[in-house]
Amino acid sequence: MTDHDRRLRKRSVGTPGRGAARGAHRPGRPEIEQAVIYGWHPVVEALSNPKRRLRRLLATENAARRLTESLGDLRITPEIVRPEEIGRMLEPDAVHQGLYLEADPLPSPTIETLNPRSLVLALDQITDPHNVGAIVRTAAAFGVDTIVTTARHSPAATGVMAKSASGGLEHVPFTIVRNLAGALQTLGERGFLCVGLDSEGASPLEEVDLRRPLVLVLGAEGKGLRQLTRERCSVLARLDVPGAIKSLNVSNAAAVALYAVTRKLRPV
Amino acid sequence: MTDHDRRLRKRSVGTPGRGAARGAHRPGRPEIEQAVIYGWHPVVEALSNPKRRLRRLLATENAARRLTESLGDLRITPEIVRPEEIGRMLEPDAVHQGLYLEADPLPSPTIETLNPRSLVLALDQITDPHNVGAIVRTAAAFGVDTIVTTARHSPAATGVMAKSASGGLEHVPFTIVRNLAGALQTLGERGFLCVGLDSEGASPLEEVDLRRPLVLVLGAEGKGLRQLTRERCSVLARLDVPGAIKSLNVSNAAAVALYAVTRKLRPV
Repeated sequence: MTDHDRRLRKRSVGTPGRGAARGAHRPGRPEIEQAVIYGWHPVVEALSNPKRRLRRLLATENAARRLTESLGDLRITPEIVRPEEIGRMLEPDAVHQGLYLEADPLPSPTIETLNPRSLVLALDQITDPHNVGAIVRTAAAFGVDTIVTTARHSPAATGVMAKSASGGLEHVPFTIVRNLAGALQTLGERGFLCVGLDSEGASPLEEVDLRRPLVLVLGAEGKGLRQLTRERCSVLARLDVPGAIKSLNVSNAAAVALYAVTRKLRPV
Repeated sequence: MTDHDRRLRKRSVGTPGRGAARGAHRPGRPEIEQAVIYGWHPVVEALSNPKRRLRRLLATENAARRLTESLGDLRITPEIVRPEEIGRMLEPDAVHQGLYLEADPLPSPTIETLNPRSLVLALDQITDPHNVGAIVRTAAAFGVDTIVTTARHSPAATGVMAKSASGGLEHVPFTIVRNLAGALQTLGERGFLCVGLDSEGASPLEEVDLRRPLVLVLGAEGKGLRQLTRERCSVLARLDVPGAIKSLNVSNAAAVALYAVTRKLRPV
């Protein structure tokens, strides 16, 4: 079991899914880990992703009909339920749009097996699931190969985060590591250029000589990169903005940085 | 009274502020319009903005002490309250951090009086207050002069939106118009280059010949720009992304577009 699996398992005991949405529990063995995915876009993307192994789909009658209209035959037969039944399994304000899916977590690459042409994003203790979800969606748009993050201090790839990612999770796997500084060191030894985004960075991001394989490292708003993370970066770069407020929210910073980076890395 | 004022007035009857946070109501006259601002960053930025006319500040004892430590003498004496008293005036999940401010809306430029070197953002029916707040913050970072939007179909510059804007509202005023297409036409007649962001746009944004004054027009996710909005643009441009997901969330799209635009418009 990887750290990622363990994390998903732990989360599935708490939120989302108060009770109903668990795998079978065998005495003496951990609960079966799973991803909970709800809402139109995330569920459609998961059903369309052949790598995503499905377990159970709950759908309202309307949502099931819309799904079949959009996708044709489904890979899994939905259990038709009333909207309240889905609502009961999720956070009170979850917008599930009549769709609730339980599935296996996606297979994740490891630091050691990442393709040597990769573009990787590393998140240093970014905890808000809305922010991480938005980053995943944007990473999928910019062709990021994987998101490296730690098991602690990051939200599970499920529920609110999957919803904010709006299907992005089907395209960008997570590589969960115990220790981010250690992972960056290994990537450095494998030839990755490690670029940390830091408001105190010596160079504007646009002036950094970029090349693949590359790992772009983002810290949490306010806190930024931890000292050890900073020390493991090949270069610290800043995003200069011309206006009165000097910082972007973290998902906007990720979007701008990925845009700047992918333009310089072209052709892919 | 401008459209903006009317809108704020209408909103202040509903959310946020169930009851306690109203101006005096004189018979036969509209209620006094006001902005409600809560949370550490938004309140600190408002108190630091000399253009923001303050009415009433509620603060917990701790928050009041932190404010004085950060800002020195305050322009307004806080009424010390318990956190629950602030909580009662806001949405149930509002993170107010012990600070609640009532103030006048900021003065807004009109379409006719905008500086002829302006960079303007126009929002076509973007309704989610979190998204609009994030856009305001990013607009402040990229030096946008004003955000043009319609009174209907957009959130008031207060409450949740002010919180998401994280102080950005103090730097970027809103210009509220009745009709967006009409406003774009007037801006066009005033010499503004009107660039609509559209996934079906003829040119990548990077290839558009940009110049000031410029208005960048964004539509809502999924819906995009309305037909009449599209017709009033000088050029429709698209943001190309290399990955599997072809669209960004609207605040991320705004950030990337503003980054691309401000780099081409330099020097300011």
